[in-house]
Amino acid sequence: MTYCLAIHLDKGLVFCSDSRTNAGVDNVSTYSKMHNFVWPGNRVFVLVSAGNLATTQAVVNKMNRDVDQGLVPNLLSVTSMHEAADYVGMISTDLQRLHASRDNTSANFEASFIFGGQIGQAHPEMFMIYPQGNFIHESDEHPYLQIGETKYGKPILDRVIKRDVTLERAARCALVSMNSTVRSNVTVGPPVELFIYERNSLSEGRRLCLPEDDPFSREFSEQWNEGLLQALVGLPRFSWEKEQVPNRPQGQVFPFTPNSS
Amino acid sequence: MTYCLAIHLDKGLVFCSDSRTNAGVDNVSTYSKMHNFVWPGNRVFVLVSAGNLATTQAVVNKMNRDVDQGLVPNLLSVTSMHEAADYVGMISTDLQRLHASRDNTSANFEASFIFGGQIGQAHPEMFMIYPQGNFIHESDEHPYLQIGETKYGKPILDRVIKRDVTLERAARCALVSMNSTVRSNVTVGPPVELFIYERNSLSEGRRLCLPEDDPFSREFSEQWNEGLLQALVGLPRFSWEKEQVPNRPQGQVFPFTPNSS
Repeated sequence: MTYCLAIHLDKGLVFCSDSRTNAGVDNVSTYSKMHNFVWPGNRVFVLVSAGNLATTQAVVNKMNRDVDQGLVPNLLSVTSMHEAADYVGMISTDLQRLHASRDNTSANFEASFIFGGQIGQAHPEMFMIYPQGNFIHESDEHPYLQIGETKYGKPILDRVIKRDVTLERAARCALVSMNSTVRSNVTVGPPVELFIYERNSLSEGRRLCLPEDDPFSREFSEQWNEGLLQALVGLPRFSWEKEQVPNRPQGQVFPFTPNSS
Repeated sequence: MTYCLAIHLDKGLVFCSDSRTNAGVDNVSTYSKMHNFVWPGNRVFVLVSAGNLATTQAVVNKMNRDVDQGLVPNLLSVTSMHEAADYVGMISTDLQRLHASRDNTSANFEASFIFGGQIGQAHPEMFMIYPQGNFIHESDEHPYLQIGETKYGKPILDRVIKRDVTLERAARCALVSMNSTVRSNVTVGPPVELFIYERNSLSEGRRLCLPEDDPFSREFSEQWNEGLLQALVGLPRFSWEKEQVPNRPQGQVFPFTPNSS
């Protein structure tokens, strides 16, 4: 299984992916599911993938090869993000059809993708590409996309993510969403990869790879756990409980203002 | 869809259920999914249900009727929780078989249950009863059970629920788990029902029905939202961020000690 998500903010794009793959419960491995294609000053693309690992690797290989060999369309020839997503969807379905035509069993070659980026000064965009090659974008009401094991990590996104959240705050929220999924489902696992792209930078952006034993990952996980426990302590008491909620001091310790972090 | 959960603590049992039913997206309704069977001083049972509504209603009806008519086995004749769970599983599969035998389509008559309680001074127990009528209990490592739409609300349970948590704290955690599910999945909806049973009380316990517009529900939801946002603000900054995490004062505002609430 897999969990990947991407968030489209006013200030740019955030992508996050896990790295666990499994072909049966006795065949578990680690592969990066995040692929960047960057021509600085010109165009930036990011692809995260879920599904058949051979399909996703073949798609990435074909995307690179088409550029190297000058086969059109390719990531350098496309003139819009929509055209680029259509190109990726076409590669994916072509490869699935090829693999299925050689298959003597009834294996599942399907793969899903989130594909995003920016071409020149056009708006950044992102799409979820279905195994069928068609795709949808996010929306103002729902500015994020998820693929794979999406449910464990959805509540925190629904509560926090809005277009005007800062890149770093959204990235922390993505890490929380991933952390909850990793804890609750053994088929999603570290290292966690994070990519933060600032709108109009047309640069390589910031990319982090966070293994489980990384000091930042550990501190992050511990702090979130502690924060949740404190949030639980702060909840209203039932009518029959004699204990009182501790009074809040004048001025909160962590004053929350939208986008403050 | 449905979401029900139950928690088995040293101090007793907590059950929580939503009330939304749907037979197709254009046939949405509200039914309680929580059923109590109480003989004060003698025995207490609770049943929460997911799946085919006709099956679950027929099961509850049969459980009541068997007692009224003195048909054995029934909830008063069984001598252990294990025997009681086996009785419920048998009723469920018998009724599914009956409905299937009358069916000219290929409808799904399956239902799942969480069934718990206490008989006399024996230990309280709880079981998840599969549509096949067999069942499992929880464990020290995993002291809760879920049926229905289980994933959205699982992370908070995994982080918080241990055997030695207080009944009220576990009940708050159950409400958070339910609240996250209701927000993220439209097929799970209020009113939320909560049942708190204190070990060895052999009484009716505390039962709450919380509609969406209930002041307690609203305050609960708002406080949890605020607590989560504060937890996000308290997370470690990325290395490139110049802002500092606000220093915590000496002594935390909501000091957390295990089981403090």
